[in-house]
Amino acid sequence: MKEVIAIIRPNTVSKTVKALDVVGFPAVTMAECFGRGKQKGYFSANLPEIVDIQKIIEEGEKEGRFIKYIPKRLISIVVDDADVPLVVGIISKVNRTGSFGDGRIFVLPVEEAIRVRTGETGEIAIGN
Amino acid sequence: MKEVIAIIRPNTVSKTVKALDVVGFPAVTMAECFGRGKQKGYFSANLPEIVDIQKIIEEGEKEGRFIKYIPKRLISIVVDDADVPLVVGIISKVNRTGSFGDGRIFVLPVEEAIRVRTGETGEIAIGN
Amino acid sequence: MKEVIAIIRPNTVSKTVKALDVVGFPAVTMAECFGRGKQKGYFSANLPEIVDIQKIIEEGEKEGRFIKYIPKRLISIVVDDADVPLVVGIISKVNRTGSFGDGRIFVLPVEEAIRVRTGETGEIAIGN
Repeated sequence: MKEVIAIIRPNTVSKTVKALDVVGFPAVTMAECFGRGKQKGYFSANLPEIVDIQKIIEEGEKEGRFIKYIPKRLISIVVDDADVPLVVGIISKVNRTGSFGDGRIFVLPVEEAIRVRTGETGEIAIGN
Repeated sequence: MKEVIAIIRPNTVSKTVKALDVVGFPAVTMAECFGRGKQKGYFSANLPEIVDIQKIIEEGEKEGRFIKYIPKRLISIVVDDADVPLVVGIISKVNRTGSFGDGRIFVLPVEEAIRVRTGETGEIAIGN
Repeated sequence: MKEVIAIIRPNTVSKTVKALDVVGFPAVTMAECFGRGKQKGYFSANLPEIVDIQKIIEEGEKEGRFIKYIPKRLISIVVDDADVPLVVGIISKVNRTGSFGDGRIFVLPVEEAIRVRTGETGEIAIGN
């Protein structure tokens, strides 16, 4: 089993969760978080197409329009190994705009899963 | 070492943390999160015993009584490999009601732990 | 790749993130959380140098000055294996006061990373 963790924009959560649901992954955990990536918090929507990131940051800090932490959402879903490419693919497709701030996805190993209600473990615990 | 992550109901956090403390695991991290499981957000307390989940969801959506994200709490505790069954057992016991929404527990491998105050690592860093 | 997770004090987040940025790790995720460690929520600043923790807790509870959950911040950063000692070292240095509550750092294996914007994976996805 793997945990697929996605750090995405708040406004794409609903679409992402719905897309995962449609292909058979209704069980997700979501949390509020803050991100700070390559662009160091500058909203990508306002970035010209070719930019000197460092210069923009410095100018942004000077002008006080630099946002250090950007509100993000963390989505976590535990799936069978075989389902990782599908889940990663769906999250990528729904969240890719081509702009900075589209987010990142991480895949971590999970050794055991337990459904508390039934005590079921393994694939059954994460299945539908 | 392993990280035991439990996604549980907000109202069972205190009892869970106290139970873990009593058996020797005082160090936990807790965070607010939102869950969406097999029941897709429908409060389990109102579910008849035998149900067609999909039908309930559709009816719930139609009637506007469908709650998409249920407030949950994430509890994280890093323990020695040998302590995983005990910790999982305690969390399961305290949180099992038999209803949807009891939550899930995941076990992830942890390669290193560092206590910042002392620089201690490994089992000493997670010990009491 | 590894995920370095640090549970630290809220007031050291800025300094920590800036220090990580200076040495080449601008991309971090931050979340609010609550901690409860060895000292079981008693603010370390008020602890005498040599203490009977259990006695202090009992007295604290009696006097109603016992704080169960201490606001913390979780910082997560995914880095190459070779960068773990540097990242752990920086977080430790910035956060070590020698008092209870300095926090803990955990290192977890990460099997894959994907930059959503470009679809890049692996070291490129977590690089600058």
